[in-house]
Amino acid sequence: MIWRRRHILSLADWEEEEYNILLQTASSFSEVLLRHTKKVPALQGLVVTNMFFEPSTRTRSSFELASKRLSADILNFSPGTSSLVKGETILDTAKTYLAMGTNIMVIRHKQAGVPKIIANEMDRLQSGVSILNAGDGMHEHPSQGLLDLFTICSELDSSYPRLELLQGKKIVIVGDILHSRVARSNIWSLTKAGANVHLVGPPTLLPKWFTDIKNTDSKGQLFIHWNLEDALKQADFIMTLRLQKERMTEALLPSSREYHKYYGITHNHLNICQPNVKILHPGPVNRGIEISSKLIDDLSISLVQKQITNGIAVRMALLFLLGTFSE
Amino acid sequence: MIWRRRHILSLADWEEEEYNILLQTASSFSEVLLRHTKKVPALQGLVVTNMFFEPSTRTRSSFELASKRLSADILNFSPGTSSLVKGETILDTAKTYLAMGTNIMVIRHKQAGVPKIIANEMDRLQSGVSILNAGDGMHEHPSQGLLDLFTICSELDSSYPRLELLQGKKIVIVGDILHSRVARSNIWSLTKAGANVHLVGPPTLLPKWFTDIKNTDSKGQLFIHWNLEDALKQADFIMTLRLQKERMTEALLPSSREYHKYYGITHNHLNICQPNVKILHPGPVNRGIEISSKLIDDLSISLVQKQITNGIAVRMALLFLLGTFSE
Amino acid sequence: MIWRRRHILSLADWEEEEYNILLQTASSFSEVLLRHTKKVPALQGLVVTNMFFEPSTRTRSSFELASKRLSADILNFSPGTSSLVKGETILDTAKTYLAMGTNIMVIRHKQAGVPKIIANEMDRLQSGVSILNAGDGMHEHPSQGLLDLFTICSELDSSYPRLELLQGKKIVIVGDILHSRVARSNIWSLTKAGANVHLVGPPTLLPKWFTDIKNTDSKGQLFIHWNLEDALKQADFIMTLRLQKERMTEALLPSSREYHKYYGITHNHLNICQPNVKILHPGPVNRGIEISSKLIDDLSISLVQKQITNGIAVRMALLFLLGTFSE
Repeated sequence: MIWRRRHILSLADWEEEEYNILLQTASSFSEVLLRHTKKVPALQGLVVTNMFFEPSTRTRSSFELASKRLSADILNFSPGTSSLVKGETILDTAKTYLAMGTNIMVIRHKQAGVPKIIANEMDRLQSGVSILNAGDGMHEHPSQGLLDLFTICSELDSSYPRLELLQGKKIVIVGDILHSRVARSNIWSLTKAGANVHLVGPPTLLPKWFTDIKNTDSKGQLFIHWNLEDALKQADFIMTLRLQKERMTEALLPSSREYHKYYGITHNHLNICQPNVKILHPGPVNRGIEISSKLIDDLSISLVQKQITNGIAVRMALLFLLGTFSE
Repeated sequence: MIWRRRHILSLADWEEEEYNILLQTASSFSEVLLRHTKKVPALQGLVVTNMFFEPSTRTRSSFELASKRLSADILNFSPGTSSLVKGETILDTAKTYLAMGTNIMVIRHKQAGVPKIIANEMDRLQSGVSILNAGDGMHEHPSQGLLDLFTICSELDSSYPRLELLQGKKIVIVGDILHSRVARSNIWSLTKAGANVHLVGPPTLLPKWFTDIKNTDSKGQLFIHWNLEDALKQADFIMTLRLQKERMTEALLPSSREYHKYYGITHNHLNICQPNVKILHPGPVNRGIEISSKLIDDLSISLVQKQITNGIAVRMALLFLLGTFSE
Repeated sequence: MIWRRRHILSLADWEEEEYNILLQTASSFSEVLLRHTKKVPALQGLVVTNMFFEPSTRTRSSFELASKRLSADILNFSPGTSSLVKGETILDTAKTYLAMGTNIMVIRHKQAGVPKIIANEMDRLQSGVSILNAGDGMHEHPSQGLLDLFTICSELDSSYPRLELLQGKKIVIVGDILHSRVARSNIWSLTKAGANVHLVGPPTLLPKWFTDIKNTDSKGQLFIHWNLEDALKQADFIMTLRLQKERMTEALLPSSREYHKYYGITHNHLNICQPNVKILHPGPVNRGIEISSKLIDDLSISLVQKQITNGIAVRMALLFLLGTFSE
């Protein structure tokens, strides 16, 4: 199995083999992180530039630590104090960092498609640079999707996480599906793996056309629910999404209290799920809204801390595969 | 002598032996910093996360350089661009950095007690993480207290700085004692060492109950003065505190000019002190308010630059002791 | 040839020999940057502190990467969250970073002369610290001037860039000469090299007294034009300057559209220049104002990307020469 993908922009067209390479590479790095010396010289001399046009501490820190563990040099572009203020285009900013010697650009932008546009330009210039989408608008957040996938697969077989483990599993994604780039990335990977994905949320945040998102060659099915209990029956995994406070002001939701009443997950919901049901959340958590405070802290059920830890290993794997890849 | 403390939250309960271990470790690192190669691999693979909820360049830079000298990896959490804005609790932020693999958290917060709350949670989770208080509200600033202690002891015996050197010395702390976390940390360490500590400042900034702060088992005495000349007689060391401009608007002080007239230190005050009297200031200095510009620049008397240099060695010592400690 | 300069504040008094040492050192580092392992241990243990009182991502990133390539430790001073807010003087801030162990300070400030003032103080204290001016007001930006020089010389002989290559060449600098620190640094180096420098711009942005700027011992001549076509005839190199939007509000210019009509460079201008004419721009570019979008992207003529790449090598050379220099 050889890695052949230069950019990580979306999970929509990933093949089974690619998922498995990624899962196994992340699994190796997971073990490196348990060693006393957690650093490997794999990307020594390479430059990873974090271009977060949308502010973020959590994801940026995760990529930064992953890069350091691989011995890469890191540049941080911060739009607040930057040439953008001076009227430079995003493509010119990217070309500036290319000219400085950047090998991998990790890009977050509030507008969907920006990482793709930069990737196209880098390819046109035959630069050899890799683009890693760290979240673009409502489009995708592939590294989050992959760390969720790795967390679920590791839960099913920690020594050998692989795609086939998800075959026939029931995974429920709860919340603001419409605005969630995390949900989109998850739908691609989970249905590809053969899991049955059940989406549930208020009708304003979960339009009917969402069923169209599935790949025609995916083994898993995609279902839509507006009632939480209907969705949760026999669930193996529940993925809760973060509720953006803005949705209330946009009149898409009456109040966070009412949201919690109808779609917030608590211990009470678990008896209709599979006995070993586990819960994920991409963070940061609004305690008492998407999920009860008690449930998020129940480490026998909540995988939230594991997701963050796995995030380092998965991002190391992505950076490693991109950094050592050559056509 | 073995180090047995996981968190550095306060100096209130430090034992003599602990001070001496710290002073000697800092002394060794002081010598490392004079070598051509100033880096030691002591903390390679460990992650130090700076969580400065209150902005600071000086202290953060000092911890950052100390961490780099020890070959640790550093993450910087900046609340401005962070999940805090998105409503995450401080404990959840700390747990996020724990899950990423943080070994030591350096925490500054405007509210007293925050480092302690995080330390309790880390212990409850049996995480093994160490918390280092880098200043919490009006409570304590132990690393500043320790670098002041190291600076004074080194002045008395540079080759072997130790606590007993302070026995019977007179140390005067001048200024806004009430609001100073630096003064609180200094009072604990200096009285423990057997020095006699004289506090002096305007009555609004130095209430009478301050004498209660002393440990009952401390060898040194604590005195309160409202008149500067009374306090300075025969002083061995004068510690000036920074005057916060806010105190004027709070009507605790009439004006910075009047403050300087009654409590600002100049060369004129030195003739009533011991012949070798030295002056400290935690910085940043308001020239012409707490201390005259001429005196702060008189390197035969002012230890301000040495305090900053020693700050790197003392913080290296703290990070080293926490990073290599295991129960 | 031995390097004897402690500070890089201005190019006004540079000797030919110094330029040639710099060009050759930068040329060596250019080759290092093409190797797989791009890191050299030259400045291991040294501390480079970036003090950008004026915000900048591009130049700071360039210095940061150059420092990392040389294995130096880096501290970043950011005025926004700093002691400056608390009323500390700039000299005290500099002395704080000196006391922490800084070896080289890279300083940008909106006021001309600040790097010089700090350099004087560092010398007075016999600190051994080097100051590198990264742009001070309308005064100078020597590292930009040197990377422009290196880019032009490398274009003329990539294997052996040296000053004499510029003898008799015609170099046109177009735009807001009055406010440009880049232009000032370029005028010193290019006339010293024996190039004939033609300045062109609107009269409000190019006063007649500019001809006085030339050194009396410079071999090259300095000319002033207010008409673009007059200036461009037989040009070997065209250096376009960035137009600050503020100039319009200051009524020094009617509009950016009119500016482009009279002083913007397009492919149409090239037929009156030398056949191999090349174009430089210090970035960030206002596309369609100083230069047409099509021309900036024409890699057979535009050297913009090469300037950025060379910036890393030139800054490595400067840091290396300052860091290994001792009287």
